[in-house]
Amino acid sequence: MNRKPNLKDVAELAGVSAITVSRVLTHPDKVAAKSRLKVEQAIATLGYIRNHAASALASNRSGVLAVIIPSLSNIVFNEVLQGIYSAVKPHQLQVILGDCHYSPLEEEKLIATLLSQAPEGLILTGTDQTDYARKLLQNAGIPVVQLMELTDHPIDINIGFSHFAAGKAMTEHLLARGYRHIGFLGARMDPRTQHRLAGFRKAIEDWNATSRPESLGAEPQSARCEPYVVTTSQSSSIKLGGQLLQAVMAESQGQCDAVFCCNDDLALGALFAARQMNLRIPADLAIAGFNDLEASALVDPGITSVASPRFAMGQQAVDLLMQKASGAQTEFSPIDVGYSIMVRGST
Amino acid sequence: MNRKPNLKDVAELAGVSAITVSRVLTHPDKVAAKSRLKVEQAIATLGYIRNHAASALASNRSGVLAVIIPSLSNIVFNEVLQGIYSAVKPHQLQVILGDCHYSPLEEEKLIATLLSQAPEGLILTGTDQTDYARKLLQNAGIPVVQLMELTDHPIDINIGFSHFAAGKAMTEHLLARGYRHIGFLGARMDPRTQHRLAGFRKAIEDWNATSRPESLGAEPQSARCEPYVVTTSQSSSIKLGGQLLQAVMAESQGQCDAVFCCNDDLALGALFAARQMNLRIPADLAIAGFNDLEASALVDPGITSVASPRFAMGQQAVDLLMQKASGAQTEFSPIDVGYSIMVRGST
Repeated sequence: MNRKPNLKDVAELAGVSAITVSRVLTHPDKVAAKSRLKVEQAIATLGYIRNHAASALASNRSGVLAVIIPSLSNIVFNEVLQGIYSAVKPHQLQVILGDCHYSPLEEEKLIATLLSQAPEGLILTGTDQTDYARKLLQNAGIPVVQLMELTDHPIDINIGFSHFAAGKAMTEHLLARGYRHIGFLGARMDPRTQHRLAGFRKAIEDWNATSRPESLGAEPQSARCEPYVVTTSQSSSIKLGGQLLQAVMAESQGQCDAVFCCNDDLALGALFAARQMNLRIPADLAIAGFNDLEASALVDPGITSVASPRFAMGQQAVDLLMQKASGAQTEFSPIDVGYSIMVRGST
Repeated sequence: MNRKPNLKDVAELAGVSAITVSRVLTHPDKVAAKSRLKVEQAIATLGYIRNHAASALASNRSGVLAVIIPSLSNIVFNEVLQGIYSAVKPHQLQVILGDCHYSPLEEEKLIATLLSQAPEGLILTGTDQTDYARKLLQNAGIPVVQLMELTDHPIDINIGFSHFAAGKAMTEHLLARGYRHIGFLGARMDPRTQHRLAGFRKAIEDWNATSRPESLGAEPQSARCEPYVVTTSQSSSIKLGGQLLQAVMAESQGQCDAVFCCNDDLALGALFAARQMNLRIPADLAIAGFNDLEASALVDPGITSVASPRFAMGQQAVDLLMQKASGAQTEFSPIDVGYSIMVRGST
């Protein structure tokens, strides 16, 4: 057969009516086991492709969960995906993915494409969807999760943590350890990285405001913290971390005694480069990262980093989606999953 | 509006007939610019979801490329995906992805789901699809690429390299460097890893056959190579590399002087663990990897690894798919993209 087999071909081979085939596709529970088996065998023999859109209309279940992430090459999202995959199993959902490459416009297009697949729910990363994307989603009538960060105006379900608070806490850790010339190394500068940088600035602003109150007169120079910010729109890599370290050393005229890298790839690169510059870590230079990747705990010294429950976030996203899809009327407030500072030898 | 907006709603708001709206969706080039604009605005205002399956039927183009990879958490596939993404841009294709977790049955289900999206082509990883999946694909009437490894019986287009030959070449490199107690550390044991192991065994078998010809009498014991194979079905991680190194050291009673790790994650873990065991690399222990990940070139010493043109493979897959989709009648023979041994300080 050179053309695609159709429903009639399946019916003929199975020796049943076309209506029976259609019923097997939409309401298999209403067809006698014997006929169902014949139809399933004919479908397998012919390689007939079920039209999911049509059966979704009939059964109101497509069995598809759509997920959009900003970068498949950023391994941070792997653990979120692993959480999602572990949670979909009992729901018999298949995950269909799109990578929007950190572009809200690409994300909007993917949303339109994935919605035409009639998914039972949609999981998005971040909270920076376009207005049109928000409208599409509000009209789609399916539960939506915005994952990884928090917003005051969620589309529907929102699970994440404050990247501002985490960036601030990590900077406070470096200040508490006595570092006073702290660099921020940032790549890509997506919204979450920008929030981490805002937290960095705020921590140093607060520190300088408290530790040098004008009314008390001048304190020792060492009490004041000097921030150095080096960022690029390039995407992150280990190698780039080394280049940014060199840039911040040049900008600070060698004064920089600690770097807060916006992710662990950069921190690893900074660590490798610092070794080649014969800097002792953390005596000459402290290095902090973000995301707590596996390698950060295994290099020597280990890299201090920000951990968040990524696997659990992915699981919870699916669980709440399916609760809502199955008719729960609950309104969920944004769920803050928190973060932790994993302190290691590098600071 | 609480229900989903439909085509009639769009027509009403735009002040045009439903047929005009339908034409904008299927053959926008046949609609006057002014009406088209009105319809597009109404679509945006209402958040109307275009039914891609329907417009695909009408226009014969869905604008979707389906890709199935065995593991999103294995960063090896990132570069392939980057190649794919770089090549789809001029074709105005959107990529929809599925992760089959190295399971041919999961892959089969994903194929059925993704085919119902009417993709213009489908890219698969490896050559171990189920018979039913092959039948589905043969009936789908779209070009299919099997990527990453080579087969004598491709479904359609096949682009990759021989993991057997690469595994053999890396083992020959270790033999040429004088190592005679070589361990193979393997995780996951997917088909490509098994082919690498087969290449490892063949290289050592050939070596022992040539270097100790019976007719020439006994040669020095050191000429003969002793292989040690330690594998696990667990998925790879850096940490696992350290555990497997300990296992191969136990099995060889400390004799093992080189390890060929089935991927660079394991090799990194072996490197970190060897340092903690105070082994000098490569004097006491040589370490070889596979895939040539970024970190392998940046650690000290750098890890010798097998590189393959993953980015170019992804690009070529899309280019050939689109040639074929646009009606080229060419039959493509399997395309061998080759591999290279990147020799670094670890061997």
